[in-house]
Amino acid sequence: MNSAATWPLLVTMGDAAGIGPEIIAAAARCGDLHDAVVVGDPAVMRRASALRGGIGPMAVVDSPADPGAPGALRVWVPPSLPTGLSALPWGQVSAEAGAAAAQCIAAAVSAVQAGQARALVTAPLHKEALAAAGQPYPGHTEMLQALATAPGHAPPPVRMMLANPELKVVLATIHVALRDAIAALDHDAVRSTIQIAHDAAQAWGLPAPRIAVAGLNPHAGEGGLFGDEEIRFIGPAVAAARAAGINVSGPYPPDTVFMRARRGAFDLVIAMTHDHGLIPVKYLGVEEGVNVTLGLPFVRTRPDHGTAFDIAGQGCADPSSLRAALRMARRLSAGRSV
Amino acid sequence: MNSAATWPLLVTMGDAAGIGPEIIAAAARCGDLHDAVVVGDPAVMRRASALRGGIGPMAVVDSPADPGAPGALRVWVPPSLPTGLSALPWGQVSAEAGAAAAQCIAAAVSAVQAGQARALVTAPLHKEALAAAGQPYPGHTEMLQALATAPGHAPPPVRMMLANPELKVVLATIHVALRDAIAALDHDAVRSTIQIAHDAAQAWGLPAPRIAVAGLNPHAGEGGLFGDEEIRFIGPAVAAARAAGINVSGPYPPDTVFMRARRGAFDLVIAMTHDHGLIPVKYLGVEEGVNVTLGLPFVRTRPDHGTAFDIAGQGCADPSSLRAALRMARRLSAGRSV
Repeated sequence: MNSAATWPLLVTMGDAAGIGPEIIAAAARCGDLHDAVVVGDPAVMRRASALRGGIGPMAVVDSPADPGAPGALRVWVPPSLPTGLSALPWGQVSAEAGAAAAQCIAAAVSAVQAGQARALVTAPLHKEALAAAGQPYPGHTEMLQALATAPGHAPPPVRMMLANPELKVVLATIHVALRDAIAALDHDAVRSTIQIAHDAAQAWGLPAPRIAVAGLNPHAGEGGLFGDEEIRFIGPAVAAARAAGINVSGPYPPDTVFMRARRGAFDLVIAMTHDHGLIPVKYLGVEEGVNVTLGLPFVRTRPDHGTAFDIAGQGCADPSSLRAALRMARRLSAGRSV
Repeated sequence: MNSAATWPLLVTMGDAAGIGPEIIAAAARCGDLHDAVVVGDPAVMRRASALRGGIGPMAVVDSPADPGAPGALRVWVPPSLPTGLSALPWGQVSAEAGAAAAQCIAAAVSAVQAGQARALVTAPLHKEALAAAGQPYPGHTEMLQALATAPGHAPPPVRMMLANPELKVVLATIHVALRDAIAALDHDAVRSTIQIAHDAAQAWGLPAPRIAVAGLNPHAGEGGLFGDEEIRFIGPAVAAARAAGINVSGPYPPDTVFMRARRGAFDLVIAMTHDHGLIPVKYLGVEEGVNVTLGLPFVRTRPDHGTAFDIAGQGCADPSSLRAALRMARRLSAGRSV
């Protein structure tokens, strides 16, 4: 049996008409896929690799556990993946590409859940292509939640984490108007975000992760003077989590807690809003920003950008964020006992 | 007549029982007050300098324009400043200290308005001491607004800018609950913030400052999907300011605009909320953070902390933020044609 270090990362190719295959090829050319298996179509990968000057030998493997030929890029083709994907025009929405991308994700989740891989890294999907293919999920996250749901159970609650090498931030709310984010926050939202973050960090190998909760209001409300959410439910949710044995503290003033975490005071920070969390993660540069889905029964990371249909097929896509997603997937799965 | 470079900075001593005099003494010991005049009490400054190992000769000058003795720290005593301040206990609220601090500010504003100084740097006040002295102003900003008001005119509208060497952020709203900040924002609030920022930056010597306006909502509302403030009034206020000849653009997604400004794309960023703006300014460290009041007819900076009564008199206060405030006051007043 393989040891944890040799279980591969699985990298789904994403939408065949977007930049996903190209950034995977670019990362492979730099040696970043030595411990990874691409889940996708070999012809699509060949077309993409030609954009980047070729990537050397490719080995079509029978399963993620198949070591392939030494030095070759391993590509695992999900059962019954349609052919012809490599003839699709670049940068155009197609049901074929959407359906194939979804098939790759489903196969990859099955493999990682079966213990054949250590983590999942997903290249970008196109939401319209997914819809054109009749997929009921608006994006990756909902699809992964559904695929990870045990029969007869509710989907696992998930949270988005944005991370770079110096800061990890988990968001309590994401893509809603700021006023709706405030309205959506309550004791349960904060308490469950703390729990999801704690459980995920333990799975990464931190026995007692130091979690900081950022407040919502300036100065974390200044004792109720600038807002009462900290008093009404953020503080009580932190207290409840502490009582349950979690090493969490706060709420802290939003304007200094990220700086403190960057300097090492905390392992991760929970932000109440999208931009409180993403402003500091992106401040030093977006290239290293990685999106991690917490709450799933496996590690899943993705680059922090989309299919970029406007530049697909040009050979100029930047693989930095995918490479960062690969590194983060390695780090976060190193401590897992799958 | 003095040239602009030799007009002094005026540094008000702040509350005599707080860390203000001590951090001024510490900055003087490092040579940072070579072009400055302290507005305050010589005995208070002597007591404070003893905490930092002494600061060499001190020259009590008759006016800010008085060059004093070469190499000496110049201290200008406002007319009728009471004596006995240096006997006040450290770290305690007193009406005497509050009244004296207010007198120093009033004298300094008169001098800078009379063209005897190039800019004003204020050491921290204690709000309770100010109230105990019967001052009607809750803090520096309101007092400075009142002192800068021409007879028969309304006080000038002001905005807080937070700045460090790589980023300048002007806040459209400050110390209110986040939900109240959202409610307080409208076309006029954004338009006037742009105007105040533009006028201030021109006074610093930038003929056409490049101003970016950050949105309020995630992705700046994503075309109305995540909130409509950008469509209803932020975008129109930007357009109105552009039509008036201001080099302003936006609204931009909050999570990347500060990163772009740090890399040089903009001269300053307008943030809709306290923490959208302060998170990036403080992310790399609070020591360099300087608070600048825009909208006054003179340059005014201050360190980004308070009187720190809990550590006053111990000789361990950090002068970094005051030193940064001095540097920022020099930079921002270099282009003024006062």
